[in-house]
Formats: sequence, C-alpha cells, structure tokens
Amino acid sequence: MEIISGGVTAPKGYKAAGIYAGIKKKKKDMALVYSVVPAKAAGTFTTNLVKAAPVVWDMKIVQEYGAAQAVVLNSGVANACTGALGVENNEKMAAFMAEELGLKKEEVLTASTGVIGNQLPIEIIAEGCKLLKKELGEDAEHAGLAAEAIMTTDTCSKQYAVSFEIGGKAVTIGGMSKGSGMIHPNMATMLGVITTDLAISRELLLTAIREDVKDSFNMISVDRDTSTNDSLLILANGMAGNEEITEKGEAYDSFVKALHKVTTELAKMMAADGEGATKLFECSVVGADTKEQAVILSKSIITSNLVKTAVYGNDANWGRILCAMGYAGVAFDPDKVDLYVESCAGTLKLVENGMATDYSEEKATEILKQKEVKAVADIKSGSFQATAWGCDLTDKYVYINADYRS
Amino acid sequence: MEIISGGVTAPKGYKAAGIYAGIKKKKKDMALVYSVVPAKAAGTFTTNLVKAAPVVWDMKIVQEYGAAQAVVLNSGVANACTGALGVENNEKMAAFMAEELGLKKEEVLTASTGVIGNQLPIEIIAEGCKLLKKELGEDAEHAGLAAEAIMTTDTCSKQYAVSFEIGGKAVTIGGMSKGSGMIHPNMATMLGVITTDLAISRELLLTAIREDVKDSFNMISVDRDTSTNDSLLILANGMAGNEEITEKGEAYDSFVKALHKVTTELAKMMAADGEGATKLFECSVVGADTKEQAVILSKSIITSNLVKTAVYGNDANWGRILCAMGYAGVAFDPDKVDLYVESCAGTLKLVENGMATDYSEEKATEILKQKEVKAVADIKSGSFQATAWGCDLTDKYVYINADYRS
Repeated sequence: MEIISGGVTAPKGYKAAGIYAGIKKKKKDMALVYSVVPAKAAGTFTTNLVKAAPVVWDMKIVQEYGAAQAVVLNSGVANACTGALGVENNEKMAAFMAEELGLKKEEVLTASTGVIGNQLPIEIIAEGCKLLKKELGEDAEHAGLAAEAIMTTDTCSKQYAVSFEIGGKAVTIGGMSKGSGMIHPNMATMLGVITTDLAISRELLLTAIREDVKDSFNMISVDRDTSTNDSLLILANGMAGNEEITEKGEAYDSFVKALHKVTTELAKMMAADGEGATKLFECSVVGADTKEQAVILSKSIITSNLVKTAVYGNDANWGRILCAMGYAGVAFDPDKVDLYVESCAGTLKLVENGMATDYSEEKATEILKQKEVKAVADIKSGSFQATAWGCDLTDKYVYINADYRS
Repeated sequence: MEIISGGVTAPKGYKAAGIYAGIKKKKKDMALVYSVVPAKAAGTFTTNLVKAAPVVWDMKIVQEYGAAQAVVLNSGVANACTGALGVENNEKMAAFMAEELGLKKEEVLTASTGVIGNQLPIEIIAEGCKLLKKELGEDAEHAGLAAEAIMTTDTCSKQYAVSFEIGGKAVTIGGMSKGSGMIHPNMATMLGVITTDLAISRELLLTAIREDVKDSFNMISVDRDTSTNDSLLILANGMAGNEEITEKGEAYDSFVKALHKVTTELAKMMAADGEGATKLFECSVVGADTKEQAVILSKSIITSNLVKTAVYGNDANWGRILCAMGYAGVAFDPDKVDLYVESCAGTLKLVENGMATDYSEEKATEILKQKEVKAVADIKSGSFQATAWGCDLTDKYVYINADYRS
C-alpha cells in the first residue's frame, strides 16, 4: 500500500468540483463528486433520532439500490429540522444535479452541513448545480476544491488517498471529509465521501464500511455532540479492472486495510482540526478484558471536558483521566492502572497501580506541549485494546460556538 | 415552611467552624460540623468506580452505624487515587478530630475535595483539627465560615435553611455545599452537608435523602464529569423535640418537602456557580411518557457543550437543543416538539412541531441575556416531566481548568 497525494479524484473515473453558489456569505459552499460510470454505493449514517433530510434520502438509496453515480453536497445549511419542505428541497437538489448530469435523481446522493433549522435556498442550489457540472474536473486540484467547499468551521480541508494492488491491478481509494464541531460520530462521521475504482459487490462494500467506522470515525469526538447530519458515503466504480470481490478473502482484506488507512487518517485530521483545537489528543486503553470495555474507557477519556482542558494547559493532571475512566460505566480495577503520556518529546509513566509515580512535571509538560499527544492507560487485565482520538478544549471553541450564527 | 437565613448551625444543637490550616496557599481549607448530641446519619455518594478514601469511610459508617456526631472536611486535596496511605491518612483525620471532640473515630464522617492524586498533609490536618475544635461556634457566622472553607473554584459559598412545624414543634433544616467543576452528580453531589434537629429513624432518613437527590443534586451538571469525591451527608439530631418519625405519613411528607427545598436551592446555586459560568440554565422537558425519558432528555440538553456555548452567546440556536434531544438515546417524535425559552424578560416559542416559528431573534436574545434562563421542551406525548439545571460554557471555564493545579 502506497500513500499518494490527492483525494476523491485519485481513483480512476472520478471527477469533482467545488464552487461558490451563494449559500454562505463568501466561501465555497457546494461540491460534487461524480463517477463517469455507475458505482456501487454504501454508507453509514447518524444515529441521532433527529435526522437531516439528506440523511433520510441517502439511507433509502443505499438500502434500496446500493448504487449511485454522484454525490452533491452543500455547506452553510444543514437542512435538518426543516419538515416536509426540507424533504422536498433535498429531493429537488438531487433532481437538479441529476438533470445536469443526465442521471435519474435516485442516482444522486446528497449531503448538507451547517446551521440546523434553516431551509435550503433552492434557487441558489439550482444555479449551483449548473455551475458544478460546468466546473467538473478529474485532477487533484478539483478534488481539493470539493474538499474545501464542504468546510464549515474547519480550518483546513481534509483529503487522503492510497493505492494498492489486487490480482496485479492497481486499485486506488481517495477520500475527503469535514467536521469541526458537533462531532461525536456514532455509526458515521459528519460528512465524508470515499471513492474507489475497486470492483466489489454491493454487500461487501457495505460490510467493509460498516466494520471500518467502528475503529475510525466512530472513535473520534470533538464535543460529544452527535450531529443530525453525519454521513459517510463510499462509491466503488470498478474501473480498476480487478476481478469483482464477491467474498471475503485475501483481496477483501487488502481493500479493508487500505480503506482503514484512509478513514483513520481522515478521522484523525477531523479530531486534530476540532473547533478551536490546538492539538490532536490520542488515547489508547490496553490490557482490557474486551474490545467494548477498551472502547468505552478510551472514549470516556477523550470526551471529558476536564481532561481536554488539562491537555490544552499542558497539565499532566492524570487524576482527571482516572476519574473519567471511573465514571465510564464499565468495571476495572483502579488500583491496577498504569498510565503513560507520549509524544515526539518522549514517553513518561505518570501512574503505576493507580498511584502517582515520582515523575518530573517538567518532562510531562514538555511531552504535552507537542501538536500530537497520546495517553495510554494499561488496565492490566486482558489482551484487548482500543484507540480514540479527540482534541483539547480551548477558549477558541467557546468563542466559535457562542457566536456561530452571527 | 419558612425560608430562614443561616446554614448548618440553623437547627438546634449544631456548631460549626471554618479555618485556614495550611493545605492551600492562602484560603480557608478545613471545616467542621458538629452536633452536640449523637445524630442519625445518612448519605449518598459518587457512583464513580474510583472512590476517594473519605467516600469509602463514610459509606461504611452510614451503612454500619447510621449515626455520627461530626463531619470534618478539607479542601485543596481530594485524597483520591492515593492508595493504602490515603486510606490511612483519612482514618487519621477522623481520629484526630474525634480525639479533640471526645468521640470515637467512627462517629466522625470525613470529606475531601481538591486535586486528585496528592496525599493529605497529615501534620497540617492534625493541627487543623485542634484549631477547628477551638473555633467551633453555633451562630450563623460560624456556619458561613464552614461553608467558605470547603470552596475550591467556587466563587461564592452556598448555604440554605428552612424551618417548618411537625406536631407543634419547630423543625429546622440547614445545609451547605460546594462544587464548581467536575460536577455531574450521580447519586450525590460534590460535597454537601445537611443538618436538621428533626427526630427521625435512621431508615427513613436514608430513604428521604436517597429519594431526594434524584430530583435535586442528581439533576445538575456543570461539565458531565462525575467526581471521585461526591458526598451528600445528612445529620438529624432529634433536638427539635418532635415525636420521632418512624413511618411515612404527614410528618414525613412535611420533612421531605422542606428537605427538597434546601437541596434544590443548594443544587441550583452549584449549577449557577459552575466554573466560569455567567448564568444558570434550567431545562424542563414536559409531556413525556415517563419520568425517566424526561430526565434523560433534560440532562442531555443541559450537558451539551454546543447548547451551553449558545446560552453563553445569548444565541437562540434551538437546533442544538433538538440535536441534543435526538442523540439522548430515548425515543420521541422530533416532529411534535414545541420549544420555549423563558426568563424574567419574557417567554418565547421558538419551535412548534419540530420547526422554527416566526420568532423575533431580538426578543430571544433579550430573554437569553438574563442571569437565569430556562428552556422548556414539550414533546406532547404523555404527562411526565423533569427539570435539570446547568450553566453556560465560557472561555473562563477553559482558563480555570487549563491551569487548575498551577
């Protein structure tokens, strides 16, 4: 597997566009990802009971058809809590885009992100779809414009791509995602689109993405708020020319491994670019009795406001980590916990058997000062582990969210 | 029932002291509440798996004896994650205080709050116990000093007292509490001591406090972090002279009602004084099918960082409230929800049947600008309701917690 530059247009047969349509005041606000041939489609979506109109649309398409040829996305308006009119507007967005591309509307997936409660400005969307068609391009620059157009409070666009071989054929996976606040994915992420030229059955594509998110997008959190719009979509158009993967085996495993690299890197980029964040905070819980126990404990740590502010302050306030483990709701022996912090500045054992070691606060602060920091909690009971990614909680997060709509 | 001034010394037969012992750099750091006669004792405690040494001590005393005559408290060091030495030091603290008061150590309850992981400075504690004995007083001023000595990042001390009659006898309940960060009580609060001169059986005292916290302390949250030290203790010394309450009935109901007034007011004071908070944020969910559903939904709203920052920004960003309800994990129909905001500046319906009304943003901001604001979500299904209390999330919360130990 090779990490390559580019995003959703890296695999064969994909084009993309990112434009300014006029939904936001100034910034790009509409994107299109298009496959030149029909593609298998799968997705995972928010578990929030309040689902945005595009989420409901995509869930239906993925379930009923498992195929699509385009994804049209907008930022600025989430089209959530918008009632029957919101559903109608979403369908219109798909229809406008389909018309431009010569497709049926059921071949167009949709995604929206932005303020909840506002209706889509449908005339702007109609014009935007025309412009998107006109601006389509298959190079890396166009993928970059699409990734940029789905940003809200993100400070940078997020793309990743890898290539690998299956049966002598080069296969590529590209992806883009966005998400900076209201990030606590549960079965999906804020918005993510993955493209691949792999030939794979619809069923296995869905299986792969469903399994994958458990260890990638579902393991990140910025603010514990599970969005109404979380959608991760994947298109597979088969243009790599490999023999279609129809059962689990070596070829499927190669794909899963490459897919996981793309989703994990995108997920980490989202966590690192959490609203107001100054650093990526990774947490692994090891020595667990079950995977589930490790997942619950690691997520409890990265979502604690007190842990997150301590990380911001470069303060090795390990008591808050043990506290967050203690209220997570799963059993473990606090008197057996070892705790380490790690970064490019070194590794330090802060806690042994539930009590402070004689560590150097100075060294701990130096480790925590880096852009990527990690905590490892060893509960010394079994052999399972999990890793979760979050970010620090800063005054800037408060400013951004106290003032989001104005 | 009459609201009276004062705190833990308001009922007959109680004395208190609050002093500077030297655990903290400057501020008062030890408190004592003492009943001149033996009192029935009950309590509720943190559900965090990581329990501080004083919590373990108190749980044992309340369960085995159900009686005590004093509570010694310190702030600055939580005595949590301190191993066998922490347990020993806690027992010493009880023993020192018992010796000064001429009691057995098992008649002294303990409570600690502050940094997790540090050991109690036991010589300072020993001297502190002597000073506490010397400084005991039964007037309101002494209750105030005790309330002050248990503060950590609290900006004001928290006391409340009421009196009422049972069978012609005046009964008084007084209380104090602290808690500003790591507040998300589950079966108890950070630290709270309630005193009463009521005569009541040990069993009913425990029942009353256990039932009460469900609607008072367990309904507040500052930062979703359930502390390692949460303890709510209640002493009842019988000096009001009423016939001892040994079964549920009119007298018990009068007590429960008065107790609830004290606990609710203390809980609201804690929420309003959450770390960095500028306002109290109350949330009621009404029209629920069950009490549990209303509790889960109202707590999900007040604990959402995105809702809390919007409240700070006086921004009627109601979509975040519906979003927080949607991921709470209980069923309801989003398309039936009505949502109101309320304060002394008026009431405004923001959402009807899941969609925005044509409300005035200006009016909404005016309502949200007040020191106490309320949201009411009517899910129009059943007849149950619940109220939770929280606060806004501000840049000051971040400053306080990024820099707590330094």
